[in-house]
Amino acid sequence: MARRTFSAAGIIARKQEGHTLTREEIEWWVRGSTRAEIPDYQTSALLMAVYFRGMNVRETCHLTSAMMASGKTLALKSIRDIKVDKHSTGGVGDKISLILGPLVASVGVHIPMISGRALGHTGGTLDKLDSIPGFKTNLKVGAFERTVRKVGISIIGQTDEIAPADRKFYAIRDVTSTVRCAPLIVSSILSKKIASGADAVVFDIKCGEGAFMKSPREAKDLAGLLSKVAGNLGLKVSSIITRMDEPLGACVGNAIEVRESIEVLRGKLVGDLTDLSLTLGSEMLMLAGRVKRREEGLRLLRTALLGGKALQKFKEMVEAQGGDSRIVDDPRRLSLAKHRHTVKSARAGYITDIDALEVGRIAVVLGAGRARVEDSVDHSVGIEFLKKKGSRVKKGEAVSVVYAGSSSKGRQCARLLKAAIRVSSRKPNLRRIVIGRVTPKGIVDLPGV
Amino acid sequence: MARRTFSAAGIIARKQEGHTLTREEIEWWVRGSTRAEIPDYQTSALLMAVYFRGMNVRETCHLTSAMMASGKTLALKSIRDIKVDKHSTGGVGDKISLILGPLVASVGVHIPMISGRALGHTGGTLDKLDSIPGFKTNLKVGAFERTVRKVGISIIGQTDEIAPADRKFYAIRDVTSTVRCAPLIVSSILSKKIASGADAVVFDIKCGEGAFMKSPREAKDLAGLLSKVAGNLGLKVSSIITRMDEPLGACVGNAIEVRESIEVLRGKLVGDLTDLSLTLGSEMLMLAGRVKRREEGLRLLRTALLGGKALQKFKEMVEAQGGDSRIVDDPRRLSLAKHRHTVKSARAGYITDIDALEVGRIAVVLGAGRARVEDSVDHSVGIEFLKKKGSRVKKGEAVSVVYAGSSSKGRQCARLLKAAIRVSSRKPNLRRIVIGRVTPKGIVDLPGV
Repeated sequence: MARRTFSAAGIIARKQEGHTLTREEIEWWVRGSTRAEIPDYQTSALLMAVYFRGMNVRETCHLTSAMMASGKTLALKSIRDIKVDKHSTGGVGDKISLILGPLVASVGVHIPMISGRALGHTGGTLDKLDSIPGFKTNLKVGAFERTVRKVGISIIGQTDEIAPADRKFYAIRDVTSTVRCAPLIVSSILSKKIASGADAVVFDIKCGEGAFMKSPREAKDLAGLLSKVAGNLGLKVSSIITRMDEPLGACVGNAIEVRESIEVLRGKLVGDLTDLSLTLGSEMLMLAGRVKRREEGLRLLRTALLGGKALQKFKEMVEAQGGDSRIVDDPRRLSLAKHRHTVKSARAGYITDIDALEVGRIAVVLGAGRARVEDSVDHSVGIEFLKKKGSRVKKGEAVSVVYAGSSSKGRQCARLLKAAIRVSSRKPNLRRIVIGRVTPKGIVDLPGV
Repeated sequence: MARRTFSAAGIIARKQEGHTLTREEIEWWVRGSTRAEIPDYQTSALLMAVYFRGMNVRETCHLTSAMMASGKTLALKSIRDIKVDKHSTGGVGDKISLILGPLVASVGVHIPMISGRALGHTGGTLDKLDSIPGFKTNLKVGAFERTVRKVGISIIGQTDEIAPADRKFYAIRDVTSTVRCAPLIVSSILSKKIASGADAVVFDIKCGEGAFMKSPREAKDLAGLLSKVAGNLGLKVSSIITRMDEPLGACVGNAIEVRESIEVLRGKLVGDLTDLSLTLGSEMLMLAGRVKRREEGLRLLRTALLGGKALQKFKEMVEAQGGDSRIVDDPRRLSLAKHRHTVKSARAGYITDIDALEVGRIAVVLGAGRARVEDSVDHSVGIEFLKKKGSRVKKGEAVSVVYAGSSSKGRQCARLLKAAIRVSSRKPNLRRIVIGRVTPKGIVDLPGV
């Protein structure tokens, strides 16, 4: 007898037993789940089976294509140049998009950037931009395309029409502990990026205690799968593995991170934020064919940063998206919460560790992030580190400031924060934020900035 | 900070990582899921994680207790003697309860038997009893207790109030491919048996192609877990592993299986049905303390069978539950479907295999079983085997008869059945239906009947 249709339980059983699912089975599932014809309790069981059994490159390609095809795709046809985006797997204090986007656009590359919101211990670019008075992150597709064409860059949120299957799957994964699973991460990222009109994407794959991927090994495996699936689907990618042990930069929050980004865009040439922005930026220039060598890209970007072109581009983008561009010249217009609590070192020594995961959680307690998708965000609260890992501190010296909505919340978070910062008598080894670029032969070094 | 409540995703993650869940976590989950406070998509994810990571004896005990406590428990206090039940893990042609219950009750043991319905390829005792005109399987608890006290045996279905958590979990497992998972099977069986008032249970653990457990190894592991969990919860058990490769006995269906049961109760002393009934029966007598040695039990039961006491007890039970007891003396009152199709052997030789799983599926196609819980059953249809494994057959000799509701269905099923019966020139090795009893030291032989 010919099989007339698929059985959801049968597909779960096949994956559970370690078999490879066919393109037809995967397409049937994605369509059925998106249309709510397959109930969520079967989808969650399948995703858990995938968590344990994995998916090979071919299955992940089928899954990505099916998820992409579940909604609309942006063509952005009026922009003929190669369009480059960046994606980070999520970290604490990660305001790189705010710096990198304008920086790379300022040397002539088109960047249609689709960003996300804060969730769990990781922040979101959209929430940070929302702290700029008037700034709109929900431009219609036409306005988005126009802004990218004219300004060179625009940053918006994912629209409801792009990859609805991913939203469905992600909502289930989020509450069933199946977020950390390479084929599911890869299909989620790529289905959206391809549907959003990007031709090439640089991936910032975070690794460490504050990231989803805890070890370089896991990060490398994810990058390998990302590259293979992207390649099969016609997307150019470059994957950079970077550290996420302590928070990125000095600030964690929303308005406070925009302030810090403006500071870097003013031409600050040292620190992890600048190193990471220049490194990812030169990869984007390579992908766009704008430069032939990475060092050339770094030189170009350094000049753009020092000469004020990047800051100017940021200002243009803020204006184009309806934001108050006076914040660029006067960042104090980005208001910060009034209740400030200083964390002081209990002893003299060196800061050896700032626990990024815990700092991310404290940011959620403060209200800067979200424990659940439906939570709202307070843009004025946050954390500022006066000292970073490797800094020498005296006993009683201020190491961090908490900006809180109330005095009690501030005290609570300052106490939590103190426990997340370790001070020791021995100076720690400081390592570069950039670990390297993933190639088929392994992880290779990247030129210093 | 003290943990105020549990997080469903956190519990899933702990099981996913291979940790042992606590009693509190398990109780919280069972309560939350039964009350629909935890959504089914989280329960299905947890069950799939349990499928891959397992549960140890302690976790399985907690799960069993929590499921038992999710509903009512029958006390059956007016019956002071030890109450013994039997449970089979499900097979094809398995009418043992109809024979075993009256047989053991006829020598003075009290048997409050809670049985199930057909699902998938396995039949159900309740559906078989329903083919007896007037027979009620939905007695109220009071009537059930009274019948057991007076007659010695009563067979009813699980009431809605017993272990509702099991019904919830089972419905999810059924459609998410997590039925075949030892701790989930054990907790499902034991939570119901203990809540139903049994003090001791004999387990008939089927093993082979027609069973959930395919190998003796799997069956033994299941039996080991069953014994340990039952022991911890104060239930006496004995686990017997038996073969389920070809269907049990000669008939598969409902009315047709009642007919066959009456035939065995008339004193037939050979064949797999009698062997299995006497073996399980002598275990029940051991558990009840009625005999000290298994051989003594076998003698007692053989006498009851030959002397007509077992048949008389069956008749009493049918009368006590409102059934037409004239069927006992005149089994033709159990009507069989009119469309009869004979399956003939295509060649001369020996029957080497009758695929029980496939026969079970054909029974569902005929309408004797259920593909889904909500399907209805036709009590008059079924399959009769004129020859069993090891029989010599001539070319064109009738080996089986299909009783169908229509001529086309009969033809279809006869064709399917023919493919499920293998005839070869070499005589197969015939093995005893009873493999052995599971003890902490391994599987030990049981005395022949």
